[in-house]
Amino acid sequence: MADYTFYTNPMSRGQIARWALHEAGADYRQVLVDWTDKPMELMEANPMGKVPTLVHHAKSGDKVVTETAAICTYLAEMHPEAGLLASDDEMAAYLRWLFFAAGPVEQAITSRHLKFEPTEEQQGMAGWGSFERTISTLDDHLAVNDFVCGSRFTMADVYVGSQVDWGLNFGTIPPNEGFVGYAERIQARDAYKAAKAIDNDLISAAKG
Amino acid sequence: MADYTFYTNPMSRGQIARWALHEAGADYRQVLVDWTDKPMELMEANPMGKVPTLVHHAKSGDKVVTETAAICTYLAEMHPEAGLLASDDEMAAYLRWLFFAAGPVEQAITSRHLKFEPTEEQQGMAGWGSFERTISTLDDHLAVNDFVCGSRFTMADVYVGSQVDWGLNFGTIPPNEGFVGYAERIQARDAYKAAKAIDNDLISAAKG
Repeated sequence: MADYTFYTNPMSRGQIARWALHEAGADYRQVLVDWTDKPMELMEANPMGKVPTLVHHAKSGDKVVTETAAICTYLAEMHPEAGLLASDDEMAAYLRWLFFAAGPVEQAITSRHLKFEPTEEQQGMAGWGSFERTISTLDDHLAVNDFVCGSRFTMADVYVGSQVDWGLNFGTIPPNEGFVGYAERIQARDAYKAAKAIDNDLISAAKG
Repeated sequence: MADYTFYTNPMSRGQIARWALHEAGADYRQVLVDWTDKPMELMEANPMGKVPTLVHHAKSGDKVVTETAAICTYLAEMHPEAGLLASDDEMAAYLRWLFFAAGPVEQAITSRHLKFEPTEEQQGMAGWGSFERTISTLDDHLAVNDFVCGSRFTMADVYVGSQVDWGLNFGTIPPNEGFVGYAERIQARDAYKAAKAIDNDLISAAKG
């Protein structure tokens, strides 16, 4: 039996989790989830019915991890030999930008996509403030740092890098110099290529 | 010099970060931030100009941490002696619910508060799906677990607990049995009481 059961759909944030699984060198079995017919075992593990959902068959029992950023960081913790955890010196940047990408960046992109823009008065209440300020804060960091934690790739880059990579692909973030250069560094990872190849094959197969 | 400089405003999510500082037993100096006159040193540390922002004066140099959940988890990492980090067995729940609270819960509450509700079609795209499903998923977990990771209080409870505590106070989440019992356990913490007392005094003083 594999160490992990991975519920995913190739056309979902599951792509990010798959990349994380490959970076960690994790042994996993995938279960492809059809939006219209979700398996009961997924709904039991995650009542939200969302993919990706990861079940770790640990020695002490099954552990369920949901939320893409949590799956990435969990895998880094369970596979320290992969060297993707932050050192004490990298910890501030690691946590700051992970939560920044999972919170303000995600909210800014989703809100704009759904055509909901907070008024200036509402911006004080909404954690992301304005789309422009959120996006440029991230861009400024990546324009002067090769990776989230500086010169070294960590698991934070799987999550933050995927947000940037997707945002550029879908045109939901602007093709600023900082973002474009960072996306190129991300795409050069062997694990990125291996994971994407699997999802792209699944997407092609589904299209028949 | 204190180990940390803590930019906050008593009427902000800075209350959560202060509780985390007290749980960790951290030595900090506070800088109160007026919304209309933000200090230059805050804007340099965090271009978003948001509070809370934490600067750790580490031996290797200053480290900036933004995002409330990142500040909480950073403090747990820097103060392992406080016993607030997750064990390997607790790690899945620790990360899952931290990112669930920082992502879907935050988005569900903010969106409802700003009177933006995604249509059924949009729910597939928005990571939080519907308000009801997100809130009941969290409630169900807390109805059968004393704390986020089970029987033991961890730093995840400072962040998730604050979301629940605030949600109940402001009426943005329903007073379900799971939430109410959890909030009572949270409020019983000595560090919660010490931190709240400071912020409440600051709020009273500001009101003159």
